[in-house]
Amino acid sequence: MAIIARYHVEAQTGVGFRLQQGQFLTIIDPQGEQVADLVAFGAVNTTEWLSSGRSIDYSETIYLTTGHVLYSNRSSPMFTIVEDTVGKHDFLFAACSPESFWILDGIQGYHPSCFENLEKSLGPFGITGDRLPTPFNLFMNASVLPSGQIKIAPPLSQPGSIVRLRAEMDLVVGVSACSTEACNNGTCKPIDVEISGETS
Amino acid sequence: MAIIARYHVEAQTGVGFRLQQGQFLTIIDPQGEQVADLVAFGAVNTTEWLSSGRSIDYSETIYLTTGHVLYSNRSSPMFTIVEDTVGKHDFLFAACSPESFWILDGIQGYHPSCFENLEKSLGPFGITGDRLPTPFNLFMNASVLPSGQIKIAPPLSQPGSIVRLRAEMDLVVGVSACSTEACNNGTCKPIDVEISGETS
Repeated sequence: MAIIARYHVEAQTGVGFRLQQGQFLTIIDPQGEQVADLVAFGAVNTTEWLSSGRSIDYSETIYLTTGHVLYSNRSSPMFTIVEDTVGKHDFLFAACSPESFWILDGIQGYHPSCFENLEKSLGPFGITGDRLPTPFNLFMNASVLPSGQIKIAPPLSQPGSIVRLRAEMDLVVGVSACSTEACNNGTCKPIDVEISGETS
Repeated sequence: MAIIARYHVEAQTGVGFRLQQGQFLTIIDPQGEQVADLVAFGAVNTTEWLSSGRSIDYSETIYLTTGHVLYSNRSSPMFTIVEDTVGKHDFLFAACSPESFWILDGIQGYHPSCFENLEKSLGPFGITGDRLPTPFNLFMNASVLPSGQIKIAPPLSQPGSIVRLRAEMDLVVGVSACSTEACNNGTCKPIDVEISGETS
């Protein structure tokens, strides 16, 4: 198995790319305590999208980790998680956006956001912002209390922590280095993305 | 305030309708222990849709109840919950579908589903199945354990339990009487839907 591509995603930016069925996508937190937002669409038909609702439903847990399958809205497997050195990720929250910084933090001026990063990264693939689903927020440390309240704590990821996913169909993928300081223990940091697989 | 419309949604069926800003939508569980799946789209621009990810994010809880706002993917308020006699609803799970009955229960033959009910009900409004987001599952009694595992128990709704929502924009709405026996204490039952507001 060879490395096919490796992207260094600078803090508060994103990347979009194609992934072939059977290839592996490794999301690496190079410095630790950094969240990465992941969305995906069918490459053949981009109206098929990674669905938090289906993935949570079929796994019967909000903490998807090694062995779990991430499903599309059409209930097709999109990814299988084959390695996870952290084990706690969030699939509840929408990507941070200009509006979320205003609603949650009262920030009126410009602030980088995962929504903008993903919209820019996926635009060349014909995917508009209105079609971005709830992302799989890797390394995000969100806990649900018995009351239902959600608490965000610093990510449990250490420098070099990874999640590796196998693509179960041909995909268009977007990854954003999360742009909300509060989710990343105060500082937004980069994310590394590696694609690997067989080369013919 | 007058009743504008009232729909009796038979067990394992759905309904689609328009709702004007300021009107009230009351979802009634006439027999008790019955879930109702709710999705919504902007009437002016149906590419705007009710977002579980934004609603959970801004409310900071998975249990949305009286006083909480349900937001669109564009972070616009779509509904405010103005009355809730139950207080526990689910916003995590996708609508049950032919595929979900196969994946979760091994059912290969036809089974009615909320996905089919919503797709049929919203087709006349130009909304296709691929655009159905994770619904707000009223009265669904899903609990998240500290491990992240989700447990479904019979709904806490009694005969006549209601949730009343105020529309914060003009909407196209779909409601399905949940078609999964296991979520409804073994029997799928009807749901009543009432629209009320000022008449000129």
